[in-house]
Amino acid sequence: MSKLRLRIAMSLDGFVAGPNQSVENPLGAGGMRLHEWVFPLRVWRAMHGLEGAEVNESSRVVEESMANIGATIMGRNMFGGHPGPWDPKNPWNGWWGSNPPYHHPVFVLTHYAREPLKLEGGTTFYFVTDGIDAALEQARRAAAGKDVQLAGGAHAARQYFAAGLVDEMLIHLAPTLLGSGERLFQGIANLRGLELVQTVAAPNVTHLKFTKR
Amino acid sequence: MSKLRLRIAMSLDGFVAGPNQSVENPLGAGGMRLHEWVFPLRVWRAMHGLEGAEVNESSRVVEESMANIGATIMGRNMFGGHPGPWDPKNPWNGWWGSNPPYHHPVFVLTHYAREPLKLEGGTTFYFVTDGIDAALEQARRAAAGKDVQLAGGAHAARQYFAAGLVDEMLIHLAPTLLGSGERLFQGIANLRGLELVQTVAAPNVTHLKFTKR
Repeated sequence: MSKLRLRIAMSLDGFVAGPNQSVENPLGAGGMRLHEWVFPLRVWRAMHGLEGAEVNESSRVVEESMANIGATIMGRNMFGGHPGPWDPKNPWNGWWGSNPPYHHPVFVLTHYAREPLKLEGGTTFYFVTDGIDAALEQARRAAAGKDVQLAGGAHAARQYFAAGLVDEMLIHLAPTLLGSGERLFQGIANLRGLELVQTVAAPNVTHLKFTKR
Repeated sequence: MSKLRLRIAMSLDGFVAGPNQSVENPLGAGGMRLHEWVFPLRVWRAMHGLEGAEVNESSRVVEESMANIGATIMGRNMFGGHPGPWDPKNPWNGWWGSNPPYHHPVFVLTHYAREPLKLEGGTTFYFVTDGIDAALEQARRAAAGKDVQLAGGAHAARQYFAAGLVDEMLIHLAPTLLGSGERLFQGIANLRGLELVQTVAAPNVTHLKFTKR
């Protein structure tokens, strides 16, 4: 069965975004520190059309996390932090540029309906207004047997997590503190059957993989 | 120079004790889950006079964390959760029993003065009422060149951490959520110069060791 796989970077004090998130600074103050480990990696740079050669213990983790993914779900903030209804005359197409690094269907949880946004390289954003179950069903169908990636942000991740729908969770634990911002596990008191199955130490990050028993 | 070494177990969501801590349940609701990885270990069981033979990746981490320690500092809750002045007629000697597993001087941060409490096996508890700097100074003197262990709980750890006095931090990260309770890093927004230097994966725990650059 197609799995729902959450993959998210988190600080040692439990934050997945810093305070004062905005359209200009979607990760919030200090939030970029959660992702510093990934930027030098060849696997990440190639995905974003950049050169770069670093290969370390994180490389295999990132490669495995991208394997067998047929569709992605994300929250509205992660698509583009859009605060209200879409303006059809001046559409905001998110921060992912003209050729997003997904190359498969992406389902965006939002309160505002919008036509699908087809971009280069095989990425089409679909805007789902009827909740997490509907988004998951559509994403599973689009994934055609492959798994569905839950890309974040915190609010979307928490909703699926609280509903017990996450089958696999990969936390990229950054050895830094943010002090405030968005907590991944705010209001969640147990792992919903997920168990730690793999720990990978790498430069500037520890990867913790959980799966259902 | 003698280092101050914090060693503490923490949940994935950042708690070092669960909610509703009391004299009967000093770790709070669910707090015992943070320590389950240690109970089967031979090194821990021997320290507490119990038999048991398990040796795994945690064993060396625990052994190293106990090496070269000449004194310990702990908060009042960790000594025994005593809520007010000591009763000289009916003294409460904490939860550590008649032969505590320290075997060296232990300095307890408290607001209530008390004569030193000398127990079997080389452990004497000293009650320090004039703050964290005084306790550290006394502990360093008692350690006679060895390092000082900061054993917790959360409040004591945070005070030393916020003051930038922690030279080494070993977090035993338990793959579980507590949802509420005492957060280690509450109100602390940076690591005070500590950097991740070692990650050890072991059954039911990930050990993260930080030191000053």
